[in-house]
Amino acid sequence: MTYELYYWDGIQGRGEFVRLALEDAGADYVDVTRVPHRGTGEMLKLMKSTNQAQVPFAPPFLRDGDLTVSHVANILSYLGPKLGLAPEDEALRWFANGLQLTITDFIAEVHDTHHPIATSKYYEEQKEEAKARAFEFVANRMPKFLGYFERVLSQNPDGGGHAVGNTTTYVDLSLFQVIEGLSYAFPKAMRHYEQQYPKLLALHASVKARPNIATYIASPRRLAFNEDGIFRRYPELDIEP
Amino acid sequence: MTYELYYWDGIQGRGEFVRLALEDAGADYVDVTRVPHRGTGEMLKLMKSTNQAQVPFAPPFLRDGDLTVSHVANILSYLGPKLGLAPEDEALRWFANGLQLTITDFIAEVHDTHHPIATSKYYEEQKEEAKARAFEFVANRMPKFLGYFERVLSQNPDGGGHAVGNTTTYVDLSLFQVIEGLSYAFPKAMRHYEQQYPKLLALHASVKARPNIATYIASPRRLAFNEDGIFRRYPELDIEP
Repeated sequence: MTYELYYWDGIQGRGEFVRLALEDAGADYVDVTRVPHRGTGEMLKLMKSTNQAQVPFAPPFLRDGDLTVSHVANILSYLGPKLGLAPEDEALRWFANGLQLTITDFIAEVHDTHHPIATSKYYEEQKEEAKARAFEFVANRMPKFLGYFERVLSQNPDGGGHAVGNTTTYVDLSLFQVIEGLSYAFPKAMRHYEQQYPKLLALHASVKARPNIATYIASPRRLAFNEDGIFRRYPELDIEP
Repeated sequence: MTYELYYWDGIQGRGEFVRLALEDAGADYVDVTRVPHRGTGEMLKLMKSTNQAQVPFAPPFLRDGDLTVSHVANILSYLGPKLGLAPEDEALRWFANGLQLTITDFIAEVHDTHHPIATSKYYEEQKEEAKARAFEFVANRMPKFLGYFERVLSQNPDGGGHAVGNTTTYVDLSLFQVIEGLSYAFPKAMRHYEQQYPKLLALHASVKARPNIATYIASPRRLAFNEDGIFRRYPELDIEP
């Protein structure tokens, strides 16, 4: 059965956390909105249905046959065991999901650096507030979250450079994407902090070298970061902490 | 085994979504930070450990014996089946978790109405930006989320006034708390919109009348809303949409 991923076309966005898992596992999937003759219209039709059960609030969502699963952490919790990207141990699965939800919170804060007041308005209409929020982000929030993930890697009793247990999980892939995105959007802050997070950077490098991830990144399926996504490079927000 | 809930003392906050499930089910639990001789110090000690595995980033988290589960949606996904507050059907469980994560997103937006720039600063230092964000919230975000949940109730093929399936789940309890909180923080907007969401208001009333919930709300364990929590009543943010 082919997995169907629904997400906005043209950006990595939140969909990328799901794509990385599907790509790493070599899973059979389609990115529905990028398929000719299907496209964003098909996604919106599902979301706007006024009679279907179980409509999702927002993309990304995944369809597996008749089943619809929405929200990144929920999708990864569903796919993880099927793709061999979840821990075997039950307790570690709950921990992995908790970590993924912490990443979710972090990503929402990244988004709000360029949209602190209103998602319905352009960045240019909230630029001054964005500078203030971006300063708070690079000065306080980035080190708080990155410091936490570094501790998680350091305190993993199984060691081995993984966030959870002794195998690669979707959490590792998502942490790779977090570092990719922050390096794109906040290069000054990343240079400022990087020596403090050696285990996170080592994890980033090891995920990047995984064969299926390397193939994916070199493919046209991996879109470049851009200023419509979550991680945006605005020079005025690239603040030295 | 007694469940141990860890959350900031003195507020309902995110912990309340977990408390409502534990209370409705009549579960054996303690609110650790409110127990004399345990308190917030015990929670912080767990969070700040530099050698333990599986440390949580933030409260709320739940301990069940040796297992630690963090994040509201993750905790409810764990507790739901044990407390008889999750759907039996597997597909509906994924849907319930997706709904709970949508509530999580909504709650984060409620928080940001009073802290749009920096969680590290006082509300009074970001009051002007808070007014702008609160206007966006009551004008656009509140109807978007509430309209979605109303659709979920309307389009539930099992009907019966539940968000998922034909039984009370933790999602119903959480939607009750959303309406409680919005009515406290944004009474003008709630009065403005309430006729548009009859099914949500009926759900709120039916949850409130559940015996264990009614007992809980009348007990000293249910703290009042206040201006240290997520739902805060600031007259200047109580904007007419």
